[in-house]
Amino acid sequence: MVLRDGVPTASGQALLKRLNLMTIVRLIKDHPGISRAEVVERSGLTKSTISVLVQELLDEGWLVEGASLVTSDVGRRRTPLSLDGTRIGLLGAEIGVDTLRVVACNLLGEILDARSAPHEPGDPATTARAVAKLLVESHDALIGRRYGVLGMAVGVPGVIEDDGSSVRFAPNLGWQDVALGTLVRTALGRKCRGLSVAVLNDARAAAFSQYVFGAERHLEPLVYLSLGMSIGAGVVVGGRLQVGHNGLAGQVGHVILDPTGRQCSCGRKGCAETVISQRAVSLLVTGKETPVLAVAELTQRLRRGDAAAQEALARAGHHLGVLMLAIGNTLNPAVFVLGGPLAQIGDPFVITAIETMRAELGRFDHHDVAVQICRFGQNACALGAAGSVLQNAITA
Amino acid sequence: MVLRDGVPTASGQALLKRLNLMTIVRLIKDHPGISRAEVVERSGLTKSTISVLVQELLDEGWLVEGASLVTSDVGRRRTPLSLDGTRIGLLGAEIGVDTLRVVACNLLGEILDARSAPHEPGDPATTARAVAKLLVESHDALIGRRYGVLGMAVGVPGVIEDDGSSVRFAPNLGWQDVALGTLVRTALGRKCRGLSVAVLNDARAAAFSQYVFGAERHLEPLVYLSLGMSIGAGVVVGGRLQVGHNGLAGQVGHVILDPTGRQCSCGRKGCAETVISQRAVSLLVTGKETPVLAVAELTQRLRRGDAAAQEALARAGHHLGVLMLAIGNTLNPAVFVLGGPLAQIGDPFVITAIETMRAELGRFDHHDVAVQICRFGQNACALGAAGSVLQNAITA
Repeated sequence: MVLRDGVPTASGQALLKRLNLMTIVRLIKDHPGISRAEVVERSGLTKSTISVLVQELLDEGWLVEGASLVTSDVGRRRTPLSLDGTRIGLLGAEIGVDTLRVVACNLLGEILDARSAPHEPGDPATTARAVAKLLVESHDALIGRRYGVLGMAVGVPGVIEDDGSSVRFAPNLGWQDVALGTLVRTALGRKCRGLSVAVLNDARAAAFSQYVFGAERHLEPLVYLSLGMSIGAGVVVGGRLQVGHNGLAGQVGHVILDPTGRQCSCGRKGCAETVISQRAVSLLVTGKETPVLAVAELTQRLRRGDAAAQEALARAGHHLGVLMLAIGNTLNPAVFVLGGPLAQIGDPFVITAIETMRAELGRFDHHDVAVQICRFGQNACALGAAGSVLQNAITA
Repeated sequence: MVLRDGVPTASGQALLKRLNLMTIVRLIKDHPGISRAEVVERSGLTKSTISVLVQELLDEGWLVEGASLVTSDVGRRRTPLSLDGTRIGLLGAEIGVDTLRVVACNLLGEILDARSAPHEPGDPATTARAVAKLLVESHDALIGRRYGVLGMAVGVPGVIEDDGSSVRFAPNLGWQDVALGTLVRTALGRKCRGLSVAVLNDARAAAFSQYVFGAERHLEPLVYLSLGMSIGAGVVVGGRLQVGHNGLAGQVGHVILDPTGRQCSCGRKGCAETVISQRAVSLLVTGKETPVLAVAELTQRLRRGDAAAQEALARAGHHLGVLMLAIGNTLNPAVFVLGGPLAQIGDPFVITAIETMRAELGRFDHHDVAVQICRFGQNACALGAAGSVLQNAITA
C-alpha cells in the first residue's frame, strides 16, 4: 500500500514520489471535492505527474472520484476528488485508568467500530493483552467490511520515549519503562502481522482527533487541553505534535498559577492541577479530599442550584482562563480545544475560562483565538490515536 | 546562486535537487569536517548524487574542502567538508529604540563588519534610510572582500505581518502598519538590487543568533528570552521560529505571574514585565518610576554591596525562574538562552532564576534543560537576522 508506514524512503526518486503523494492527499483532505486541475494549481506539480499519482491513489483506496461536473468554461469536465471513506481503515486505542477504548475509523474519521472494556491498572502485559483483544475485534470488523488497515496507535496517560513505542512512566497506571508497542504487537498475534503499533501520550492523541478530523482541520497552532483528574495539553505545530526535548511538552498541569496556593502531588505549590482539576473542584465543593465528585454529580449539583458547586467551578474556570492566557501569550494558538470530562461543564466552568482569557488577551493585542469543546467526547483519545496513523502517513 | 532565495521551486526535479542541496548544507553545517562518504551515510542519498551536488556547492561558494586525510581503513582518502567562510556573506540589522545596528557575517556567523548609529524613533522612512545607509556600507565592505551576498534581514521590536516584510505595530517605535521591507529596499538603491529584505521580530531574530551560530547549534526547542525594558521570547521548533496564529507567539512578558500584583502597561495585573523587567527592578531599588536605572548602574550598586539592588534582582530572578518554569512545562525546551541587558547580571539575577527553575522542574520530572547567556551581546539581534537568511535558505 502506498504511504503505508510513514517512514520516508531515502532514495531520491522514491522520496520525491512519496512527498508528492503526501502533498496530493493533504490537498484533497483539506479541500474535498477539488479537481485534478486544482490540485495541479495548488501543488505546482505538473499535470502528467498529478494524473499518474492520482490514479495510483485511486487504485490504492486513498481517493474516490465524484460524479463529473461540466464547468462553464468551454464545457470541460471537472471530476471532484475526495478521500475514500470506504476502503482504508485506521485503528486507535486508549488505555485509560479505568477503561480501555478502541475505535476503528475510515480516512474521514467516521467511526466504523467502537469497543470498550473496564480496566484495572496493574501488569502491563495483562493490559496489553486486553487492549489487543479489542484491537483484533475492531480489526476483524474492518476486514469484514473489506477495509484495508493502514496501522494502529495507542494513547497512554504518561510520558512516551522518543522511539514512539515505549512508555517511560505513567504514574496513574503505576508503569515505568514499559515496551508497550512490543507487548501489544505480540499480543495481537498473526492476524495483524505487519501492522505497526505506535504509542503516544493520551492528551496528544486527543489533540489529533480535532486536528486531523475536526471541523476546523489543520488550524494551528492547536492546543488541546485535557481537563479531568489531571490537566495536560497536546500542542500541534507544523502538522506535528510537539513532544519537546525530553518528551515532556504539554505538562501544563504543573504551570504555577497560585504561588501561595496548595501543595500539588508533584511537591510544588499552586500548580494548575491544584486549582483546575476535578480533584480541586471537588475539594472546594465538599471540603474533603475524598471521594472526588464525579462530573455527573457536579452537573447535578449545578442543576439543583448548589452555590458551592457554582462558585467552585467558576473559580476553577477563572484559573483555566489564566492558564490559557499564559499558553496564549507563549504560543499564540489559532484554537484551544477543551476536552476531558470537565470540558462538558459549559457554564460556569468553560464560560468563565473563556471570558477570563478573552478579557485579558483582548486588552491590547490582536489575538484571535477560537475555543472549541472537543466534539469526540470519550472517544477523543482513541480516535485521535487513529488519526495520528493517517497524519504520520501524509506528513514528511 | 543555488539556494538563493529560500523559495522552493515547485517542479519535481528542481524541488528534489533543492531539498537535497539543503540537506547536504545542513549536514555539513552541523558536522563540520565530515567527508562525502559520511554525507552519503547520513543523508541516505546515493554516492553519485552527493558527488554532483557537493561539487556544485563547492563551485558556488557554500562549501570548502580541507586537506585530505588518509584514513586507516585500506588507505582510502577522506576529504573533510565544511561551510566556506570566505565567499558568501549575510547581512543583518536591528532597529532598536535608541540604536541602529548592522552586521555582515559569513556562513559561520563570524562578524566581518559591524556598524551602528544612534536612532530616534519617528518617521519610518527616515529610519529606513538610516538603516539602509549602514546596510549599504556593510554590503560594500563584503563586496570589497569579494563576498557574494545571500540576502539581508532586519529585526524590529514589534509584531510583524505574515508577509515577513511589514511591521503591524511597534509600540516602542510608535509605528503602526509600516511596509518596512519595501522602504528599506527602496532606500538601498541600485547597489543592492535583487537582494531581498526580510523583516522579523527582534527577540525572534536574537533567538536565531544562538540557534544558527551558537555553540549548541540546532538544539531545540530553543527559547530565547530577551530581558531588558521589556520581556519577550523567540521560540525555535523544527528549525523554524514560531510566530503563532496572529504573529504574537513569544509575548511572554504578559504571562501573569502575580495575580495580585502591579498594573502592567497593557492594563492587566502582575504580568511578567511588572516583576522582571528593568523598569520593575529599578522601581524596587529606588521606589520611583523614573528614571529607570541603567544596567550599568545596577551592576555598580551590586558591586558596592547595595542591599536593595541585591534583593530587587534576586526577586526579579525568582520571577524569571517561575516564567521559565511555565514555558518549560509547556514546551519542554532543550535550552533557554538569556539575552538582553539584564542577562548580563549573572548574580543574583540569572543565578536565582536558574535555581528557582531547576528546583521546581527537577522535582518530579526528568527535564534536562540547559540555560545559556547569549554570547553575542548587543549584536545578537542583527547577527540573528543575518542568521535567519541562512536558515531560510537551507530549511524546506
